[in-house]
Amino acid sequence: MKNGLFITLEGPDGSGKSTQIERIRTFFKQRGEKVILTREPGGTPISEKIRTIILDKENRDMDAMTEAMLYAASRAQHVAQVIRPALERGEHVICDRFIDSSIAYQGYGRDLGDCVSIINAYAVRDCIPDITFLLKIDPSIGKGRIEQEAEDRIEMEALDFHNRVYEGYEELELQFPSRIVGIDASRDVEAISGEILEHIERLLK
Amino acid sequence: MKNGLFITLEGPDGSGKSTQIERIRTFFKQRGEKVILTREPGGTPISEKIRTIILDKENRDMDAMTEAMLYAASRAQHVAQVIRPALERGEHVICDRFIDSSIAYQGYGRDLGDCVSIINAYAVRDCIPDITFLLKIDPSIGKGRIEQEAEDRIEMEALDFHNRVYEGYEELELQFPSRIVGIDASRDVEAISGEILEHIERLLK
Repeated sequence: MKNGLFITLEGPDGSGKSTQIERIRTFFKQRGEKVILTREPGGTPISEKIRTIILDKENRDMDAMTEAMLYAASRAQHVAQVIRPALERGEHVICDRFIDSSIAYQGYGRDLGDCVSIINAYAVRDCIPDITFLLKIDPSIGKGRIEQEAEDRIEMEALDFHNRVYEGYEELELQFPSRIVGIDASRDVEAISGEILEHIERLLK
Repeated sequence: MKNGLFITLEGPDGSGKSTQIERIRTFFKQRGEKVILTREPGGTPISEKIRTIILDKENRDMDAMTEAMLYAASRAQHVAQVIRPALERGEHVICDRFIDSSIAYQGYGRDLGDCVSIINAYAVRDCIPDITFLLKIDPSIGKGRIEQEAEDRIEMEALDFHNRVYEGYEELELQFPSRIVGIDASRDVEAISGEILEHIERLLK
């Protein structure tokens, strides 16, 4: 049996990932194919508990390395318990944020550097996305689109942090051109989903 | 100002670490020197929250890599927030379990291998113990000394697991002979603490 497709969406908060994820889900449903949506950090009961610690506004003393390792721990569980089994059953998996978020947010945003890639390589092992859509939008616009009141500890970071994250994403796009597809997310929803679904159709052929 | 001494105790549950830690604390108090006791996993509010996830019996589906990364995350926070600042203030730190526990329990016990050392090197950076006392006792005796009802998810593991952990400890003792001191913990409390305090006195000279 052929494995399902593993699709991840990346980009700043407010770049429209959730809308596009719904479009991709509908696309697979219309083809009569099984698909699961999941998200990071989270996706399993243990990962959700870890998510709570990561995002709790009370934990403002969290060391950057602690944060990076909690994301990796949550991801290891998510891969082992949800993503890998689904792909092996032939189901497609659409994941809202994955390894590239850690490299962009902790490696670049928090200046932890290469160790984030090394740690996360242990977390995902061979479970690498078939394709990653990077929704590109100026971080200040993304920040404007989300609620004015920051919802969690990561959203509370200054624009300078979000700019470093964005640079990280652009570096990753250059580094993995066959996996990561940059998408101009300043356009309307139809134009964006048209481009994304074209890429997915090509992969399914 | 000279940094404080960083002392860790390792060994199976039931090997008598807590008793010896109290003895070491008393030794420093009698010299009029500041000392803090701390433990892993835990030691900071964030690390304690991580500890709860690690040890919760409900989380029986936890992937071995997730577990290893949670320990490392907890340790990174513990080092950044408690251990390093105390040592820099010139206080001595006695820690119940540290990096060697991860290598023994996750690297050997759970067969994760070398990645546990690599991940933990990022967690502790240059904060390596000055001396580590490995309380050596047959794992089956240690298991007998602790309560019959296993208290947490790690204690519930079979003796076979605890034997692999013990082999791991013995490998570490060979690998780091200048840092790790093996102590025969089958003797009475006085004999053990006498030997431990002799080593500490030598380090303080």
